[in-house]
Amino acid sequence: MTSTRNIYLKTVPPEEAVIRAKSRLDREGLLSTETVPTHEGAGRVTAGPIYARYSSPTFHAAAMDGVAVRAESTFAAREDAPVALAHGEGFLFVNTGNPLPEGMNAVVMIENVVQKDEVTVLVDAPAFPWQHVRRIGEDIVATELLIPQNRELTPSDIGALLSAGIYEVEVREKVRTIFLPTGDEVLNFLDKPAPRAGQVIESNSQVFKAYADSWGIDASWSEPVPDNEDALRAAVIKGLESGCHMVVVGAGSSAGSKDYSKKVFSSIGEVLVHGISVMPGKPTLLAVTDERSGFPGRLLVGAPGYPVSAIVCHEKILAPVVHWLMGKSAPERPEADIVLARKTPSRPGMREALRLAAGRIGGRVVAAPLARGAGMITTMTKAQAVAYIPEDVEGVEQGETLRAELLVPKGDLDRVLVHVGSHDNTLDLLANELMGLSEPLRLVSSHAGSMGGLTALKAGSALFAGAHLFDPETGDFNFPFIDRYLAGLPVTVVNLAIRHQGLIVAKGNPLGIEGVADLTRDDVVFINRQRGAGTRILLDHHLKSASINPREVAGYENEEFTHMAVAVNVLTGAASCGLGIFAASKALDLDFVPLAHERYDLVIPDAHMDDERIRTLIEVIGKDETKTKIKAQGGYETDLTGRIMKPGMGLKG
Amino acid sequence: MTSTRNIYLKTVPPEEAVIRAKSRLDREGLLSTETVPTHEGAGRVTAGPIYARYSSPTFHAAAMDGVAVRAESTFAAREDAPVALAHGEGFLFVNTGNPLPEGMNAVVMIENVVQKDEVTVLVDAPAFPWQHVRRIGEDIVATELLIPQNRELTPSDIGALLSAGIYEVEVREKVRTIFLPTGDEVLNFLDKPAPRAGQVIESNSQVFKAYADSWGIDASWSEPVPDNEDALRAAVIKGLESGCHMVVVGAGSSAGSKDYSKKVFSSIGEVLVHGISVMPGKPTLLAVTDERSGFPGRLLVGAPGYPVSAIVCHEKILAPVVHWLMGKSAPERPEADIVLARKTPSRPGMREALRLAAGRIGGRVVAAPLARGAGMITTMTKAQAVAYIPEDVEGVEQGETLRAELLVPKGDLDRVLVHVGSHDNTLDLLANELMGLSEPLRLVSSHAGSMGGLTALKAGSALFAGAHLFDPETGDFNFPFIDRYLAGLPVTVVNLAIRHQGLIVAKGNPLGIEGVADLTRDDVVFINRQRGAGTRILLDHHLKSASINPREVAGYENEEFTHMAVAVNVLTGAASCGLGIFAASKALDLDFVPLAHERYDLVIPDAHMDDERIRTLIEVIGKDETKTKIKAQGGYETDLTGRIMKPGMGLKG
Repeated sequence: MTSTRNIYLKTVPPEEAVIRAKSRLDREGLLSTETVPTHEGAGRVTAGPIYARYSSPTFHAAAMDGVAVRAESTFAAREDAPVALAHGEGFLFVNTGNPLPEGMNAVVMIENVVQKDEVTVLVDAPAFPWQHVRRIGEDIVATELLIPQNRELTPSDIGALLSAGIYEVEVREKVRTIFLPTGDEVLNFLDKPAPRAGQVIESNSQVFKAYADSWGIDASWSEPVPDNEDALRAAVIKGLESGCHMVVVGAGSSAGSKDYSKKVFSSIGEVLVHGISVMPGKPTLLAVTDERSGFPGRLLVGAPGYPVSAIVCHEKILAPVVHWLMGKSAPERPEADIVLARKTPSRPGMREALRLAAGRIGGRVVAAPLARGAGMITTMTKAQAVAYIPEDVEGVEQGETLRAELLVPKGDLDRVLVHVGSHDNTLDLLANELMGLSEPLRLVSSHAGSMGGLTALKAGSALFAGAHLFDPETGDFNFPFIDRYLAGLPVTVVNLAIRHQGLIVAKGNPLGIEGVADLTRDDVVFINRQRGAGTRILLDHHLKSASINPREVAGYENEEFTHMAVAVNVLTGAASCGLGIFAASKALDLDFVPLAHERYDLVIPDAHMDDERIRTLIEVIGKDETKTKIKAQGGYETDLTGRIMKPGMGLKG
Repeated sequence: MTSTRNIYLKTVPPEEAVIRAKSRLDREGLLSTETVPTHEGAGRVTAGPIYARYSSPTFHAAAMDGVAVRAESTFAAREDAPVALAHGEGFLFVNTGNPLPEGMNAVVMIENVVQKDEVTVLVDAPAFPWQHVRRIGEDIVATELLIPQNRELTPSDIGALLSAGIYEVEVREKVRTIFLPTGDEVLNFLDKPAPRAGQVIESNSQVFKAYADSWGIDASWSEPVPDNEDALRAAVIKGLESGCHMVVVGAGSSAGSKDYSKKVFSSIGEVLVHGISVMPGKPTLLAVTDERSGFPGRLLVGAPGYPVSAIVCHEKILAPVVHWLMGKSAPERPEADIVLARKTPSRPGMREALRLAAGRIGGRVVAAPLARGAGMITTMTKAQAVAYIPEDVEGVEQGETLRAELLVPKGDLDRVLVHVGSHDNTLDLLANELMGLSEPLRLVSSHAGSMGGLTALKAGSALFAGAHLFDPETGDFNFPFIDRYLAGLPVTVVNLAIRHQGLIVAKGNPLGIEGVADLTRDDVVFINRQRGAGTRILLDHHLKSASINPREVAGYENEEFTHMAVAVNVLTGAASCGLGIFAASKALDLDFVPLAHERYDLVIPDAHMDDERIRTLIEVIGKDETKTKIKAQGGYETDLTGRIMKPGMGLKG
């Protein structure tokens, strides 16, 4: 027992977890069979071999419109010596699909027949036997094996079965399962709750349900189960009683709930897997019920609480096990080689699922890693690809090639606009507009700041970069930086909008902040943007102009990566103010102390200017409708929007 | 008008057909929107942008079990000089997921804390601000764009939407469609008919329905519509009245029904496409309704009657158009490079969809073309891949590489046993057994005769070959031929069964056929097997032994490729008899005049003997259960089944 325990207490690779589950489940004993009408059988799996009842065609059939003949009677026919055939004995008219008249064994196409008189036709070339005839059983011979056992029925199979007179099929039962969300802090989404601090809207059950539907299994879910061992055990037993082959317990966000699952599983079965060596996904539990449960031999799953962890558990563990139970091939995502746009360290001994914003640039698919937290479901909604960093490395270098699973059809990578650079809400607006096109484009954005965007252009890992880099020396935007950092890379600069930058302060401006001078006050805590961000450069310029040493500004070292994140700091009181755009303060109903206007431009390598995606992007930006929408956000001017910028233009255009 | 007509009367590539349909449909006008609960929204397409209602997390949350602290209070902590913090003011216990207590901004993991007494903890390393804290809005910031318009909602999206407090979503309507099968000869499968000559069981509606379900559209179908212009027009109008965005008319097997579709479509709309340049699939029609229909701007489709043609129409025309209407990416099949196992001529100017039995052999995927008729639905059920021979070539050579669409997951190609060689019903039996394994293997068989199988082994285009080549000189099987044709290719020969070969004659043997001597009779018509077939070699041996010249045998030149096809010829009276195995005569309830026993062996290159698929195959053949099933077919002896054969063994083993 001790040694087994030691093995099981280690995390195992997901492949090993799947093997353990399969080896401990008796698939034939667990799943029964049922009979369904053939025409409702697509996606179901045959329980046994199916033999054809009728042949198809059931008769020799004319495959062309023309005359049915005996081939032998035409053997002497030549172009200069046609053979005359008499209606009845010698030939009969047939249309495609007609049964071949008794005694005939060939069809001559109507185009190749001369009608001499009402009852005679001339044929001027020999017909070979069975010419233009679909012979009986050509497609299906009665009694023949039509479909073997364990076949997932395709649309074509349905056609073949009905053609062969098979009107009902015996198929394997669907896997039945229930998802039990747990946690005292978890709110039932059906109540349409407004969460308070400490509360979370339950959603993992529905992510699971959507997966389950795509797998073709029967899945239900319960309302959240309280964090309490007895309540959880009762819920699991109830699931087993209702006939579920598999019960999935979704952990709440508290660490405790995971322990309850382990305890409950151990009390009614044997835990097979105590965690998998993948992040996110690690706290996955697998167990098989024993006699104590009353329903031995069923699968118990502890799914992690963090949403991305749960998804990895569904895709890497449950999908293969459930499909194997049903005799199906597990779904496969399309794959592609991607070039990593950013160096990414990782933890040795753990595989890591890296979510990627990916699109084709030139001949390569370039992919920028998104945030890595297991709790960030939006990384899955934003990603086009997921790559797994192997266990045996300490990370992946920029420019390295990885094999990635695609979350979108492969062809869609050609319709992705990969943006790396400064974040602006107008990019979200553009992303939405581009999805409204008849042939939609997907704008994916990796927030790396203005300087990060230029670096990405240089590395060839972005189609374009958003930048609002102010140069205090010249009073110009972006070009001085382009000259310095992108020497030798010809680019075109297109203005997206002029933005209002200012200090985002709490509603009503309770601290009375009026400018950068207030940032040195003892009662003021600033929240800064990351190094390289244009907004930070702007702040530094204003501090310098006001002769303020950044060290005098409390919070100067605290960094956020987006305007929205800065605004959230102010909203929650984590900071008194931060520099950002008007749109962010407006979105969270905060106040705004204007400081400057700045130009937010898109920097596009000339090499991409003929790319259809870029041409479409520029076209969309230039539309009056787009400008109106940009302005409606507040805090933007569109005087220069869509215009090509030249050095020295500043804010005047 | 005339010029437009001329353009439209030519067949067009499917891509052009799709462009024509898209350019004439007003997608926004045609499809409305509707509101659905978010948790039922997977697979639906957003009608507009969706902004987050709540942030996620809605609060700063502990990401670890431990103590919440003010980071600043720990800055002085060193391993040799821990900082003591008091409960309440200095620290508070938190579990993962708990809200961070007011005033705290970091969490120290419980493992890194020493509990000095009931109210004091010691911290021996500085915490940085926001350490182990999931900050408010880390994943989702309220008011932010969460999902753009025209997004097909994934399971992850459902999770993100619920997390952000979005409980309902506005989505595009599903495309509504009806499939109208036509043809007087077509039987409604719901009646469970037994077809007579000239009748066909309708199945295309259900193939379409299965596709439609996989596309996520609403599809219904009608009972067969008679071959009659007015009835068809009435049915189409009724479909439009019921709110269908698209009406699909499935042609019957007669050529006439196609003409009715064209007439009806022209009378209530404009025909856009009069045929596509793909075979199968050519007679596809597309039209858009005008005012005369009462419901202008809807799509009318004439789907070909032959099942494979209809499938090409669904996959290459309807799938892209329907997905575009709904704002979705069209489904993509996985692809692979395949090496063609047989030279395949094709018609220039027409693309051809070649159905392929494909599997991995060594480093390559080898694919044998299946039958090419548009009426053969079983080619789709047997195929693992479809390759398109381009318009601009006259065919593809053996060994040429083609890009193919896979009908199975890519990984399944590693689980396919590619057999080329003689056909035997026992192979179907094996195919079914292999699908019953926990990790199923798919046995796919290209019927090329015994000699064809040896040739395929030589070309490296089969894993193994079934052969029953009798050598009259030595009285031995297969080895003399292997020596002659596979010199230098070491092989292992495993017996599958000993077969009874004989003359398949009509029930009751009305012509009193008793042996090959009867084949020269005037009233006897023979049906032969193709050149290279072991059965044909056996026949030639018996004819020679009886001093019969093949020219004396009527029908000697008529060839079939399988035992079953020979039996069908006898069943239908097309031939009086043919040489074949007992199993085929039994399956069709015919009589059998035994002529000889022969050894049916599997010839396996030694290079493949370690292949896991071959090892499994041999293991399955060796099972007593398999032998019992082989024998139960009748006409087989299993004395040698599963044994390795050596030269000179003959039938004795």
